Amino acid sequence: MMCALQDALIKDKDNLDLRCVVLTAQGKIWSAGHNLKELHNDPKIQACVFQKLTDVINDIQRLPVPVLGKVNGYAAAAGCQLVVSCDMVVCTKNSKFSTPGAGVGVFCSTPGVAVARIMSRPKSAYMLMTGLPVTGEEAYISGMVTKAVVPEELDKEIEEITNAIKAKSRAVISLGKEFYYKQLAMSQAEAFSAAQEKMCENFQLGDTKEGISSFFEKRPPNWKHQ
Amino acid sequence: MMCALQDALIKDKDNLDLRCVVLTAQGKIWSAGHNLKELHNDPKIQACVFQKLTDVINDIQRLPVPVLGKVNGYAAAAGCQLVVSCDMVVCTKNSKFSTPGAGVGVFCSTPGVAVARIMSRPKSAYMLMTGLPVTGEEAYISGMVTKAVVPEELDKEIEEITNAIKAKSRAVISLGKEFYYKQLAMSQAEAFSAAQEKMCENFQLGDTKEGISSFFEKRPPNWKHQ
Amino acid sequence: MMCALQDALIKDKDNLDLRCVVLTAQGKIWSAGHNLKELHNDPKIQACVFQKLTDVINDIQRLPVPVLGKVNGYAAAAGCQLVVSCDMVVCTKNSKFSTPGAGVGVFCSTPGVAVARIMSRPKSAYMLMTGLPVTGEEAYISGMVTKAVVPEELDKEIEEITNAIKAKSRAVISLGKEFYYKQLAMSQAEAFSAAQEKMCENFQLGDTKEGISSFFEKRPPNWKHQ
Repeated sequence: MMCALQDALIKDKDNLDLRCVVLTAQGKIWSAGHNLKELHNDPKIQACVFQKLTDVINDIQRLPVPVLGKVNGYAAAAGCQLVVSCDMVVCTKNSKFSTPGAGVGVFCSTPGVAVARIMSRPKSAYMLMTGLPVTGEEAYISGMVTKAVVPEELDKEIEEITNAIKAKSRAVISLGKEFYYKQLAMSQAEAFSAAQEKMCENFQLGDTKEGISSFFEKRPPNWKHQ
Repeated sequence: MMCALQDALIKDKDNLDLRCVVLTAQGKIWSAGHNLKELHNDPKIQACVFQKLTDVINDIQRLPVPVLGKVNGYAAAAGCQLVVSCDMVVCTKNSKFSTPGAGVGVFCSTPGVAVARIMSRPKSAYMLMTGLPVTGEEAYISGMVTKAVVPEELDKEIEEITNAIKAKSRAVISLGKEFYYKQLAMSQAEAFSAAQEKMCENFQLGDTKEGISSFFEKRPPNWKHQ
Repeated sequence: MMCALQDALIKDKDNLDLRCVVLTAQGKIWSAGHNLKELHNDPKIQACVFQKLTDVINDIQRLPVPVLGKVNGYAAAAGCQLVVSCDMVVCTKNSKFSTPGAGVGVFCSTPGVAVARIMSRPKSAYMLMTGLPVTGEEAYISGMVTKAVVPEELDKEIEEITNAIKAKSRAVISLGKEFYYKQLAMSQAEAFSAAQEKMCENFQLGDTKEGISSFFEKRPPNWKHQ
């Protein structure tokens, strides 16, 4: 499953027509996480499975286009880790998120790395130490997701986001996304300094010259996406 | 008071029957913080008092079981620092939190270290620079507490959390809590790498084998808690 | 404009009568960010313009008194960066914040450094990658601003904050603000250790002795502000 997901994520990454990826699911379970049957015996398989998910998450964050999680259901354990590792997440208010591994003896340490970096400590510690779920609404308030909407508005919200991305230059989004993750790991002072340089580099792109011209000429831009 | 609290926190730390600690208070003041009468004269006493609170907070975060703050009232200055240093916090909506030290000439610099790490900068700077209180509801929205409930539901909410913890293996929670704090201080890349190793280590616990077996056999686990 | 702002910010910084700065705007646009006409051609001007804003933001955070953003309108791109770089921000619920640069080919990388440090990743990535605005209400929930109020309460809320600051010693607020930003860049362990020392240093201030005496004597403090 993770291999299939990884292949699907990266196979079109250099295709200029790929502008955004939406990760979603069919049915009530967005993802229940790893398969315990696969994991419980062999340490080599365990190490391999955990490394694979880290690789998938790195692929999401390194993809030159935004990856959007669309959740209408339950995301648990590594499934919760996967969804919060998308660049953005829109869920329904009745969606649920949990990291319940400790209940079967496996503390959700890897999902914990992800949730502890987007929610406050009292919220992420609660999820990890109690295993109790949080609703889409709570996930929104705690910063875990971008938006939480009623089910009838989920498609519309996703469309608004993908339309906004499609209206932009892929080259600009790609440059911006790459730098976004890079600066997150820097101190504020380093990040401002690096961002100033990145802005100047951004201005050298052909699509940037086109974007600014179109703005002054009050016409839609004609992007080359590279 | 801090010595008594510290003794109470650590005296049963190796007792397998200790599964969770709930820090609470009687009356309307959860904690008003340090005693200014004790502090205002002697630099040696000041240094000793501040070190003691740091020690208590380190003990909370190093305790092998979760520590839960239960707040129905006012937590101010070092009292606010203490409560937000619990692993989780549940408060009533009419509870209040403040860091008002600057009002008597003592900026809440140590409480500030704690609040600035769980709330956004515009929220924590407000608390520290104005000394004005935030309500339980605001504390919830800003990530300062896990949940804010009406007073009649406080006991029930705490019980739900402690029951969830008691249903798990102490050994698993202990391993998970220790790693949780360790990974918070790492970069995301380091943390994922360390978490993968920790997950593999977790699978070696006797209680983990029992937890997974019980899951496959659809029966309650029989934890040894070690 | 940035030079005028910088001059206005720093010209009274050593004047003991300056106790707080409120940054606000006239009309519906709080700030639309950089002037593209100024930026689009000359790499030297670009570097100079980005450096100037970083300097202004550093001046805000180094100013010995709190800087408060008061927003009733639209703050976009570098204007959004400017407002969230204030120590605190109060906005109206119908205010809007966005980082729409990618729409004209210039990804908001420098504003991104600021927004990614006060909101969760799924929120800041949304703002940067879609360019879509968030309302004052969403900005409040995500931690971007201190408070979001109805327009009729904006002045009152600002007054409550400035009154709270004016009731304190400038010397104490100054010491506290300087340390607040310093500790944000430290690990938790380093920060607690440095904060303990800062607290002891704080107790040596004349205004601190006065503040504590006034507290014991149940009278208003007579601050010297130095």
